[in-house]
Amino acid sequence: MERVTQLDASNLPALARGCAILGTGGGGDPDVGLLMALQAIEEFGPVTVADLDDLPDDGLVMPCGMVGAPTVGIEKLGNGEEGVRLRDRVEALFGNPVVALMSGEIGGSNGILPASWAVRVGLPVVDADGMGRAFPEIPMMTMEIAGIAPNPSVMTDERGNVVTFDAVDGKWTERLERVVSAEFGGKGASAEYMLTVAEARAATVRNTISLAVRIGRVLEEAETEPLDALVAELDAAVLIRGKVVDVERRTTGGFVRGSASIEGLGEDAGRTLVLEIQNENLVALEGAELRAIVPDLISVLDVESAEAITTERLRYGQRVAVIAYPCDPIWRTPGGLQLAGPSAFGYDYPYVPVEELHARA
Amino acid sequence: MERVTQLDASNLPALARGCAILGTGGGGDPDVGLLMALQAIEEFGPVTVADLDDLPDDGLVMPCGMVGAPTVGIEKLGNGEEGVRLRDRVEALFGNPVVALMSGEIGGSNGILPASWAVRVGLPVVDADGMGRAFPEIPMMTMEIAGIAPNPSVMTDERGNVVTFDAVDGKWTERLERVVSAEFGGKGASAEYMLTVAEARAATVRNTISLAVRIGRVLEEAETEPLDALVAELDAAVLIRGKVVDVERRTTGGFVRGSASIEGLGEDAGRTLVLEIQNENLVALEGAELRAIVPDLISVLDVESAEAITTERLRYGQRVAVIAYPCDPIWRTPGGLQLAGPSAFGYDYPYVPVEELHARA
Repeated sequence: MERVTQLDASNLPALARGCAILGTGGGGDPDVGLLMALQAIEEFGPVTVADLDDLPDDGLVMPCGMVGAPTVGIEKLGNGEEGVRLRDRVEALFGNPVVALMSGEIGGSNGILPASWAVRVGLPVVDADGMGRAFPEIPMMTMEIAGIAPNPSVMTDERGNVVTFDAVDGKWTERLERVVSAEFGGKGASAEYMLTVAEARAATVRNTISLAVRIGRVLEEAETEPLDALVAELDAAVLIRGKVVDVERRTTGGFVRGSASIEGLGEDAGRTLVLEIQNENLVALEGAELRAIVPDLISVLDVESAEAITTERLRYGQRVAVIAYPCDPIWRTPGGLQLAGPSAFGYDYPYVPVEELHARA
Repeated sequence: MERVTQLDASNLPALARGCAILGTGGGGDPDVGLLMALQAIEEFGPVTVADLDDLPDDGLVMPCGMVGAPTVGIEKLGNGEEGVRLRDRVEALFGNPVVALMSGEIGGSNGILPASWAVRVGLPVVDADGMGRAFPEIPMMTMEIAGIAPNPSVMTDERGNVVTFDAVDGKWTERLERVVSAEFGGKGASAEYMLTVAEARAATVRNTISLAVRIGRVLEEAETEPLDALVAELDAAVLIRGKVVDVERRTTGGFVRGSASIEGLGEDAGRTLVLEIQNENLVALEGAELRAIVPDLISVLDVESAEAITTERLRYGQRVAVIAYPCDPIWRTPGGLQLAGPSAFGYDYPYVPVEELHARA
């Protein structure tokens, strides 16, 4: 795989497209992150993307992003200073300079925003993240599986409020950050699971900025049938091609929860796929039949352009394809499934890998 | 006035009684604070009450108490370690040892709890507070009028979670602490407006522990007619003697809001007084006629014992007397009225001192 070493106007749109797909509906609107990043590089120059192998072992990596309901992100851009405040507070708390920023999750705008913050503070972003996708809750990170402490963690907003958390565990970090983000107006910038470069090499999903850019490039470069090209690239299963006939969605407690129904068209006429959503697309069902389930990735795409459609932009009548593809192997381990498998979201379904479900169907 | 220099089993019950009255319905159930304090002194010995004049100028004073809806306090006692965690974090943040704790508000359990925390950390409480009563919102403190910064402020709970706030102002401190207290389960221990002894001498209401103990003593020592003795001590107006005929109360957003109606009995037959409540009793109305209004103090008392009845214990059928008496003069200044006068609570009524309203009636 080609390594991305710099982000600029030439590849940020590809990154945004890739992050939208890996966001599986969540992680915040990638167009918002793209706008922020393009503005930041115009002012501060290109963003360096560092490989963890090239950074000093004991350097401090700051995973960061926005916490809150993705529906709110469209209106609430932040002012760009959030990353500076997070970095300053993290350095004060850890007594150690931050050597690089990292996306907590590569999905949605959270895959891009940390790059826009990094260039403002003169630091690289690392080519890695804590999920390899997007997940709705903060502790659903590979760092949690690796035993990295989530705290002290920090939140800030565009007004300049800064809150520091020393919660007893990741679940309390999540609960407290969630209510603070709601009070901030639905979104807050945050950093948690700070770790050294040496720790990050083993505790993150590596090369995910490069992956997201490559996914975006596939869409940009496909002359015809971008959906087919994308499906081939991701080794994905197409669950249905059809029309959005129902969307039920509510923003509650800092989350978007709901479901969407897609009625098949063409070859898929007569079939209906239902998606269960908690910020991200978590379950795909056909009648009582499981077609794909978290932690595997489920993305809703425009059937023509194969561009991802985020949860908050799902609308009646859209012509879409729903695809599903395997998560990073770490999420299929017992520790990964305990943290972000079906039961972590209150579902009774067992986890079955998407490849297996697809072979059955 | 006799100065209280020590709190122990001989005067803590009087303090609790006095705090209940000065709490004007809020500040948390004083019986809860009393239990905690009696337990603490049994284990750690009596609490020293220090006069601000006897402490070193540059020593750090930590105002503290519980934030949240008083209705929750009855069930949620905390485990006593909250004060230790607050002190430790405050010292780390300010880089300066705390020389004394102080009640943020002398009303309700918040007038007693800091004493129970102080003895655990081997420190005195100061004979002063930030209100001279209880108010529902954190920034309604004399320290705010004096220009003391509310931040950094700290919250903790019985589980061991610690949250540090650097909010942009007192209003944001209030908003953020309020949602965190709600997430903690309705209550959180907090410290804000940290200040030096020299600052505290001019920025607090002095001698309020002594005042509360004296009020409690009046009740304990009155052989007959404790209500008359209390009214004489406080120079209070009796607004009505009667029966609670209606209580409307809801716990929402970390506050108790509602109203209570008292129908006159005996001499007051045929009259009805309505109290507007936001944690504390804020307005007393007779028809369209204002009888008393915040920041003056309005207390609901058992008509026989003259013991205060907190907002969360108001019940249909109780025989009560409602009294009103002047607040500390600082609250009648323009700065005081802006911060905690009628308009600060969304009321259109002008502020009229209770003495004046009483002379009219």
